[in-house]
Amino acid sequence: MKHFDAITTVEEIEADAVKLKEIARAVNTETWEDRANAQGARCKFGDGGVCCRICHMGPCRITPKAPRGVCGADAHAMAARSYLRAIAAGTSSHSDHTREILFILRQASPDSPWKIRDEQKLINLAKEWGVATENRDIYEIGREVAEIGLQQFGKTDGHQIFVSRAPAERQKVWAEQDMLPRAIDREVVTALHMTHMGNSSDVEALLRQGFRTALSNGWGGSMMGTEFTDILFGTPTVRQTEGNLGCLEKDMVNIVVHGHDPAFSEMMVMASHDKDMLDYARSKGAKGINITGICCTANEVTMRHGVRIAGSFLQQEDAVLTGAVEMMCVDVQCIFPSLTQLCECFHTKFVTTSPIARITGAIHVNFEIATAFENAKEVMKMAIDNFPNRKQDMVNIPATKQEATIGYPLEQIIGHLDTITNSHVDTKGSYGPAIDAIKAGVIRGAVGIVGCNNPRVRPDYSHFEIMRELLKNDILIVATGCAAQVGIKTGLLQREARQLCGAGMRRVCDLLNIPPILHMGACIDNSRILRLVCSIAEQWGVNTTQLPIVGCAPEWMSEKAVSIANYCMATGIDVYLGVEPQVHGSDVMMDWITNKQRDIIGAALTISSDPHTLVKNMIDGIEAKRTALGI
Amino acid sequence: MKHFDAITTVEEIEADAVKLKEIARAVNTETWEDRANAQGARCKFGDGGVCCRICHMGPCRITPKAPRGVCGADAHAMAARSYLRAIAAGTSSHSDHTREILFILRQASPDSPWKIRDEQKLINLAKEWGVATENRDIYEIGREVAEIGLQQFGKTDGHQIFVSRAPAERQKVWAEQDMLPRAIDREVVTALHMTHMGNSSDVEALLRQGFRTALSNGWGGSMMGTEFTDILFGTPTVRQTEGNLGCLEKDMVNIVVHGHDPAFSEMMVMASHDKDMLDYARSKGAKGINITGICCTANEVTMRHGVRIAGSFLQQEDAVLTGAVEMMCVDVQCIFPSLTQLCECFHTKFVTTSPIARITGAIHVNFEIATAFENAKEVMKMAIDNFPNRKQDMVNIPATKQEATIGYPLEQIIGHLDTITNSHVDTKGSYGPAIDAIKAGVIRGAVGIVGCNNPRVRPDYSHFEIMRELLKNDILIVATGCAAQVGIKTGLLQREARQLCGAGMRRVCDLLNIPPILHMGACIDNSRILRLVCSIAEQWGVNTTQLPIVGCAPEWMSEKAVSIANYCMATGIDVYLGVEPQVHGSDVMMDWITNKQRDIIGAALTISSDPHTLVKNMIDGIEAKRTALGI
Repeated sequence: MKHFDAITTVEEIEADAVKLKEIARAVNTETWEDRANAQGARCKFGDGGVCCRICHMGPCRITPKAPRGVCGADAHAMAARSYLRAIAAGTSSHSDHTREILFILRQASPDSPWKIRDEQKLINLAKEWGVATENRDIYEIGREVAEIGLQQFGKTDGHQIFVSRAPAERQKVWAEQDMLPRAIDREVVTALHMTHMGNSSDVEALLRQGFRTALSNGWGGSMMGTEFTDILFGTPTVRQTEGNLGCLEKDMVNIVVHGHDPAFSEMMVMASHDKDMLDYARSKGAKGINITGICCTANEVTMRHGVRIAGSFLQQEDAVLTGAVEMMCVDVQCIFPSLTQLCECFHTKFVTTSPIARITGAIHVNFEIATAFENAKEVMKMAIDNFPNRKQDMVNIPATKQEATIGYPLEQIIGHLDTITNSHVDTKGSYGPAIDAIKAGVIRGAVGIVGCNNPRVRPDYSHFEIMRELLKNDILIVATGCAAQVGIKTGLLQREARQLCGAGMRRVCDLLNIPPILHMGACIDNSRILRLVCSIAEQWGVNTTQLPIVGCAPEWMSEKAVSIANYCMATGIDVYLGVEPQVHGSDVMMDWITNKQRDIIGAALTISSDPHTLVKNMIDGIEAKRTALGI
Repeated sequence: MKHFDAITTVEEIEADAVKLKEIARAVNTETWEDRANAQGARCKFGDGGVCCRICHMGPCRITPKAPRGVCGADAHAMAARSYLRAIAAGTSSHSDHTREILFILRQASPDSPWKIRDEQKLINLAKEWGVATENRDIYEIGREVAEIGLQQFGKTDGHQIFVSRAPAERQKVWAEQDMLPRAIDREVVTALHMTHMGNSSDVEALLRQGFRTALSNGWGGSMMGTEFTDILFGTPTVRQTEGNLGCLEKDMVNIVVHGHDPAFSEMMVMASHDKDMLDYARSKGAKGINITGICCTANEVTMRHGVRIAGSFLQQEDAVLTGAVEMMCVDVQCIFPSLTQLCECFHTKFVTTSPIARITGAIHVNFEIATAFENAKEVMKMAIDNFPNRKQDMVNIPATKQEATIGYPLEQIIGHLDTITNSHVDTKGSYGPAIDAIKAGVIRGAVGIVGCNNPRVRPDYSHFEIMRELLKNDILIVATGCAAQVGIKTGLLQREARQLCGAGMRRVCDLLNIPPILHMGACIDNSRILRLVCSIAEQWGVNTTQLPIVGCAPEWMSEKAVSIANYCMATGIDVYLGVEPQVHGSDVMMDWITNKQRDIIGAALTISSDPHTLVKNMIDGIEAKRTALGI
């Protein structure tokens, strides 16, 4: 085994960023740091959730002199409404991305670029959903299953079909609490209706709709997103990759794919292997085409193709600042509109591809399902044509990058566990060995670390500190999203990083030959974590609320994260946040989300912007669950 | 013809309000005036649409020093996103109310309280939608048509079925502009997705989705709402009613129904005719049960039963302040959460009935479709039991009320026009006579006056001034919502009010025996106005954009109004607003909504908070359209 030289520290990552900011200043442009500084102290009304712009009698805000808005809404109503609207918008975004994947599956065919890559997964799902599979063309099955998937968005009656995958105890809770998620789009509309002027002002009622809406994401849109993305593009397998800005290549055409919906970046990756494209790139003096990713699109293509990761959310501008990017090609979500201005300072082409994310000043090439591969080649040609425009004296690619072992969906985790199963006494294909390790205390518990970066806390730092502390305390980490990317960039996703773990975790990692942090995918793949936790609970014979397994989003910033946190909690998983949801202007809301909601769903939030406090809380929480279980 | 004594002036209405505010002060409680005053000067960032709380990197706001949020979103992105979100929430609210009506129709049966009251309308709609009607039970037809209606919310493919009702020119515009509204709930979700952090920042793209979302309301949710409410509860007919707080009765059990979804107020009205209920009321010393309405629920039950109107939106607290209300019974939308506190100062019971509008401290009786009539009787008994608790020394019912002639859906308008059709040369059932009158200049044009009250302008005053000025200038008014109620309260909806009109309008009103302002229903019934305008355009042989017919919302405040304005404009109807949409922090947005969008949809906003300026603009606009038509 390779010696584990060193992790990359957050300070080292920051040092690269500082150099790139100097370039920004040199070309007289701004970055998120400048804009965050310019914003200065934030509006305390907005920050506390006690500003309301829902109707045009306002804006209203809560002050000691004005404890209610014009309509009579108090701080609690305002905070709860904006929280529910965040869940609705987050649910919309995650789920709508999945809708696009389903439309693609419906149009997949052997002679199109859209193939069914995991036929077995499709057949399993078809069987689960009662779709005939015998003697049928796999694409015909795909179309029928896709139709059922699409119905989950708008069906008039019934609940999310994947609810039946949840443990019986959870299904019972949801049924009793009137929380079984109906059609996804309907839950969103109900949430907006309830928060319209003159409707619900009651915190509990609004939160309950929040749970139901979030569940339609976790056990609906997101879970389908994961399943169908695997079916279309293949279930990820363990592979090596690299991460950080050092993955940009000085002598290749650098195309950065960024966003969340992997459909069109799949086409870009495919096009990058096209001989004509490669020849064309060489004809322009490049050694090849280097596709790297940012944000969750990066996670999707790295998990399936090993495509390297240029950076996480807050590095999207840094990539351009290297001066070495021929094209930033984006799909949906988390794309800075600032990229237009920034790319204009360099030779970089900024291309938007989705009607969902139209950014003023970007080159828009609408990737249509029917023509996506041609669209990808068109765009790639544009990037290649741009290679000679690169100004060599403006190129500053930081050397920093790390290796990582990635690709741990449930199938791979089970596969690894099977290697240590005693086939004489145990069944294969179970989480038994993991459960045994937790029971024995070799592993104390597990944490799903997810979410974004956020300038309101020190970027990457919280992720890094929390990850290291958990590993030291023999707590296994599964990670998705930009959180996982911090693990990659710092080196914690190498197998050798097990040397940072406590003795128990180190032994488990040795035995299974895994890194101590398992990369499970993009933020939509938090549904994989849901299934992991629920399967462990079922195989253990306890409820999800009893497990020493929690979720953590140290640096989250998006409405999707609010939806994710709520579907995790509604599934019985405690969630630890490093950024406070903006509701503290209402003590009632704060009490509900951190405490009182336990009475309904058995889980709640713990919040601290100090990563050391947060990780201590988490470890205490895990140990308390262990004690309650008598282990 | 009765002599037209006098209108009630806004000053007289205000004088009553002032007295009631004294009571509020005496019982040491607050009203919307107090809260509006306490809010003081409004936040200029929110007011200009340049505050963004979409992600938790914020809140961000635009200042000269900080022209962009952390992500890079500028003033234009912020303003356009919040505008689109308002359209989405307004569309959700209007349409979701209709979903409830459709669920009821699905459960209607001859032996339930839910009957099909307008069978012909159902049969016409069934034929329009290709549903077999021959030899079928009307309730079976109802169920099948309701299913098709419900599919408009969530169908995977295709567009709103009612789009085929629009003029060919509009359908062409919508198709060419990719604006044909898909499933209602999907349009809302697309709007939320586009406005999620890191998606669209382009004003045009956001506005385009705004039009499509709004069209899914106007030609979807709202139009179905009107149709199915008529089918279930009967198409309104011309009848007499009264309006203003003087409709509360000192010796009867006063129950105020308030909100928007008429389903459960229908049950209340039915229960109020129940002999047992009446006997029970008498046993408690009351002379009877007096149901009055507030807001759009009032419009619904007055149009169908003549139930009197206690007041419009901003009088909801005044009703309680009379001390004579045994119960305020609310369904959804525009309900002040302040009613909880206020009712506690009196004997008034505050009852919520819908899971959509849960208000802390209210008595919640969930009106279920299957048990609604029992729920209504239960609630009514509670109100009757409360009658002896009325404190006589706290009772102050203003004497003020006015008579009104109401109930002018399309069917009644056509019916009136038929009375003057020359059956030798004209076809019956057409708008021919109205078109001829407009062409001849006897009527110069028409205005749909709609919308709410809003303390940010002088309540009722703008409506009243604009209405009078239009009538004087021979412009016919159709009205809905709280706007129509201002007409009722001031007396402008009496036939005698034609004496306030110019000579042309007066002659038309004489001839048709109509008031000069035609009450077309609740705010959901703005779909009736859409159809009226489109039918006139088609029968005239011109485009909607050419007609001297416009929309006006002098005192709007809700997100529904933003949706309504946008579906009107997308249908080619210019809209005049007395309250500015909160986007003025973006000159690009202001230019788009007041001007540039004409290039896409042929209509735009004109905005002035001064009613005299606004009405002048409107008359100029109408005259300009006349000139362009050469009439």
